[in-house]
Amino acid sequence: MAGEGRPDVQQHGGDIGALMGSCPLPLPEYQEIVLAHGSGGKLSQQLIRSMLFPEFQNEFLNVAHDGAIFTVNGTRLAFSTDSFVVNPIFFPGGDIGKLAIYGTVNDLAMCGARPLYLSTGFILEEGLPMQEFWAVVNSMRTAAATAGVDLVTGDTKVVDRGKADKIFINTSGIGIVPIGVNICPERARAGDKVIVSGEIAVHGIAIMSVREGLEFETEVSSDTAPLSDLVSVILGVADIHVLRDPTRGGVTSALTEIAQSARVGIFLDEARIPISEEVKGACEILGLDPLYVANEGKLLAIVADDESAPVLSAMRGHPLGRNAAIIGIVTDEHPGLVTMKTRIGGTRVVDMLSGEQLPRIC
Amino acid sequence: MAGEGRPDVQQHGGDIGALMGSCPLPLPEYQEIVLAHGSGGKLSQQLIRSMLFPEFQNEFLNVAHDGAIFTVNGTRLAFSTDSFVVNPIFFPGGDIGKLAIYGTVNDLAMCGARPLYLSTGFILEEGLPMQEFWAVVNSMRTAAATAGVDLVTGDTKVVDRGKADKIFINTSGIGIVPIGVNICPERARAGDKVIVSGEIAVHGIAIMSVREGLEFETEVSSDTAPLSDLVSVILGVADIHVLRDPTRGGVTSALTEIAQSARVGIFLDEARIPISEEVKGACEILGLDPLYVANEGKLLAIVADDESAPVLSAMRGHPLGRNAAIIGIVTDEHPGLVTMKTRIGGTRVVDMLSGEQLPRIC
Repeated sequence: MAGEGRPDVQQHGGDIGALMGSCPLPLPEYQEIVLAHGSGGKLSQQLIRSMLFPEFQNEFLNVAHDGAIFTVNGTRLAFSTDSFVVNPIFFPGGDIGKLAIYGTVNDLAMCGARPLYLSTGFILEEGLPMQEFWAVVNSMRTAAATAGVDLVTGDTKVVDRGKADKIFINTSGIGIVPIGVNICPERARAGDKVIVSGEIAVHGIAIMSVREGLEFETEVSSDTAPLSDLVSVILGVADIHVLRDPTRGGVTSALTEIAQSARVGIFLDEARIPISEEVKGACEILGLDPLYVANEGKLLAIVADDESAPVLSAMRGHPLGRNAAIIGIVTDEHPGLVTMKTRIGGTRVVDMLSGEQLPRIC
Repeated sequence: MAGEGRPDVQQHGGDIGALMGSCPLPLPEYQEIVLAHGSGGKLSQQLIRSMLFPEFQNEFLNVAHDGAIFTVNGTRLAFSTDSFVVNPIFFPGGDIGKLAIYGTVNDLAMCGARPLYLSTGFILEEGLPMQEFWAVVNSMRTAAATAGVDLVTGDTKVVDRGKADKIFINTSGIGIVPIGVNICPERARAGDKVIVSGEIAVHGIAIMSVREGLEFETEVSSDTAPLSDLVSVILGVADIHVLRDPTRGGVTSALTEIAQSARVGIFLDEARIPISEEVKGACEILGLDPLYVANEGKLLAIVADDESAPVLSAMRGHPLGRNAAIIGIVTDEHPGLVTMKTRIGGTRVVDMLSGEQLPRIC
């Protein structure tokens, strides 16, 4: 099996040849991993759909969901994992530790679960200043307390200098899905309303402003926040169909995944999408479309038309949902696509992110 | 708070100063992360005990356990996490993907749990050959099927070239702890026997032989294997007190942690510790003490004296326990220490690994 093009590691006695013998590469157009495979957009989805899902096939995997839901002795549990590689590790409004706690808390919340327990896996680069590690650990402690979760197990690895970038953190988490809650992307149906919990594109711009050294009149701080309390509030007033936090790939990538899963169309009204002037200005300077920019403390909820008013009102009564807005509807037209009435009155398809706009945003 | 010695990232508006204001650094002797902080030995333990545990304090954390155990609606669940950074990613007998699956399966098994569901978080370096990624993914699929677990949720991040080393994998897992099973390090008590399931130091030597380009008459292949079935067999014949897989830091680091947790002494008989001639020879060439070398498919079991014979016999009847042996006893003497009768008849303390012998072994 040692044909040309095989990685040279084979000569070390590893069994890469045997591993690949019966499995031709499913993505012949990419011979290497590129940054866009981590974008949260098209290439991420392609990698997951063509390489990971067919391999790990089981009833719990769902490409368009932030976690798995399964039943253990009659209790429905949600289980989710996320690795954080954000650069820089400290940024306005947060740091990699806070992001790692809230990120997994939010993934569980997007399953409709009440987050309970988190694990944390550190990969540290040799030479990381201990003070920076300590600051990250402190931030995680505070974030876990704020979100009401316990960090119950962990792991620490160290790699040689130059083989990582300061610190990478994986958090995985477990939560309980309350009886009667049934959140899943396939439940989006024609007539449903799409609600966003607040102003979009804030986290991505906060990171980019640090990286690019931009200065705004008002500093843009990351919106990273635990959404579990907001979720429990809206679950109390309505049968929420779909929840999603539009992180990597932004609002459009998240909604496109939902449209594809539920085989529905989603029609947005650009004028209704909340966005701050600072973020809008920064997007213009950087040439970014805010619909593709990552959020960390916002959620999208899809609910039946007649429940949209109470959900919107409940969101607006919560500190993390004060600027919530109905931004679109689910339709039977153009299944699998997100279309948008633009500010100037036209209609366009807003596709998934196809390249990599902002590497290492989370 | 912007005193000298603060990381310069503060000027970007990150809140590192605020994060650290009230929290002086608990490990003043190390200003930077060093490789030994990931060794599984003394410095790893110091980092965890002084920095992580006080911060994340809760009833489920246990420094000497491979996972957390908690009860959800009457069901006892085990939850564990591990990141894998092994170098090279393909080696005799396995690869990083197989290691990642079996590693977390084994951590759950060491809690006495039946492993059920795993998550996987990939951190990929830009430029990773797609064929190598595909080989790892295939290996994970095979390993999950062998271990009888489902990979139910995942995450993929990509970092720029030179900011990681090919591929890092985190796996976290959930299992059910059967009723009546009560494995924990504190249960080791004077008179108990210490059993190892087979020949030690194999994994570490397999990795080192690749790195150092050593050639032996017989290739040393990693012993990586899922131990959950072996565990369920021995749980069927006895009330096992403690289980531990002696990975990073080897047999002595694992036993020292147990001795410290249970405030007992452990007395080993070197002549009874199974080790193959190849591994013994390689350890001599490399100047390594096999008691500190990582294992991936071996377990240590501590059981009451009168149950040690049936446990040993059950182990030997299992393919992964054919060379099992009773290697020591738990004593009241020298609490917190592991001592050993050497082959030549003396007695010595076998302390935890204090430096970093084999970085990135798993």
